[in-house]
Amino acid sequence: MTYCLGMLLREGLVMLSDSRTNAGIDQISTFRKMRVWDEAEDRTILMATSGNLAISQSVVHYVNDGLVLPGQETRSTMASVRNLFEAAQLVGEAIRTVHRIDGERLEAKDGSGFSISCLLGGQIAGEAPRLFLIYSAGNFIEATVETPYFQIGETKYGKPILDRALSYDLALTQAIKLGLISMDSTLRSNLSVGLPLDLVLYRTDALHLEMHRKIDETDPYFSIIRHQWSSSLKNAFAALSDPVW
Amino acid sequence: MTYCLGMLLREGLVMLSDSRTNAGIDQISTFRKMRVWDEAEDRTILMATSGNLAISQSVVHYVNDGLVLPGQETRSTMASVRNLFEAAQLVGEAIRTVHRIDGERLEAKDGSGFSISCLLGGQIAGEAPRLFLIYSAGNFIEATVETPYFQIGETKYGKPILDRALSYDLALTQAIKLGLISMDSTLRSNLSVGLPLDLVLYRTDALHLEMHRKIDETDPYFSIIRHQWSSSLKNAFAALSDPVW
Repeated sequence: MTYCLGMLLREGLVMLSDSRTNAGIDQISTFRKMRVWDEAEDRTILMATSGNLAISQSVVHYVNDGLVLPGQETRSTMASVRNLFEAAQLVGEAIRTVHRIDGERLEAKDGSGFSISCLLGGQIAGEAPRLFLIYSAGNFIEATVETPYFQIGETKYGKPILDRALSYDLALTQAIKLGLISMDSTLRSNLSVGLPLDLVLYRTDALHLEMHRKIDETDPYFSIIRHQWSSSLKNAFAALSDPVW
Repeated sequence: MTYCLGMLLREGLVMLSDSRTNAGIDQISTFRKMRVWDEAEDRTILMATSGNLAISQSVVHYVNDGLVLPGQETRSTMASVRNLFEAAQLVGEAIRTVHRIDGERLEAKDGSGFSISCLLGGQIAGEAPRLFLIYSAGNFIEATVETPYFQIGETKYGKPILDRALSYDLALTQAIKLGLISMDSTLRSNLSVGLPLDLVLYRTDALHLEMHRKIDETDPYFSIIRHQWSSSLKNAFAALSDPVW
């Protein structure tokens, strides 16, 4: 399983993913799930994936190889797409390409199913930062000011705190804190989501990544957050009024 | 969908269920999911159910009608079972009885599947309070001091706070608070779980219910808990250390 989170904020983007991949209970490995396209000067594009690892890796292959987008005649790559919508289309086309090759067998009765979902965020000069959630069918939705975050994978454990505390106007540093709390709740409740984490921070109009940090057991800040949050929750719980009935 | 929670504590049992039942997005109704068998002087037995409502209601019918348990010759009912294990067996037999009647069509390709799970808790004189989780197959597991709670239905949103704060030695009043917080997180994140709630409180060796309370939007204590918890979380979040990187 996987847990990935993308947050679209006025100040920029925060994306966070775990790195646990499993194919059955005794085949657990660590794979980075965050990809960054940051070479071109006018753009930074980030993608986190959840689902079948073989599909994710193939999708990245076809994205890098370039594909012809709907209504166009030449191949597009992350370096050539004109906006984030086209970048999402490119990932969608790559998913459909992999589906044409692997879909039938994966969807057969003895297969594991064709499952992938992607968070694609970033900015291309000329437009504001954008964040998309791309489905297995290759279609996608975009985050808005009203709904400024998307989750993929094991989403439920970490959702309540986002619903309470996240808004488009939250500062980037606060969004990092919030993402780590959401991830911590998931790590505690689901063994198949695991460290290290990949955390990326993109500031609006920077057009390059401000931070790409790997967070493991030894990370001092994540340890502080985990302990502080745990004791804050216990204290908050203890301070709640007792039943009046 | 449904969310039900059962907690086994040194001081007794707390069980909590919502009352939303839906068969499609526009057929949403309210049904109590908590059953209480409290007539006999030497026992109190509680059951909360999740899953197909037609199955749940049929299971209760067969439990009340009585069934012959494995290795026995006469019918047992909740009034005659000798211990909670037999009570769980009785529910399991009722589930299998309904499966023999309805299972084939429900499990057919156009059916909705045969799904039910039950939390069964209570005490029969001569043993300590016990809590069981009964599956669709009619088999079951029992809560222990190390794992003193079970959830059924939409379990994930409300699990992180239980994993942090629940222990067998928690006082009954605190367990009520905790259950309401867990339920509140679920209500906020999943529209298909809804008020009113059924809350039952059983104190060890009482052999009758101490409280059976219906909690709706107007309940003053639940409102307090919801508001206090929400602001406590926001304050705890604001007080957390900012990133040190």
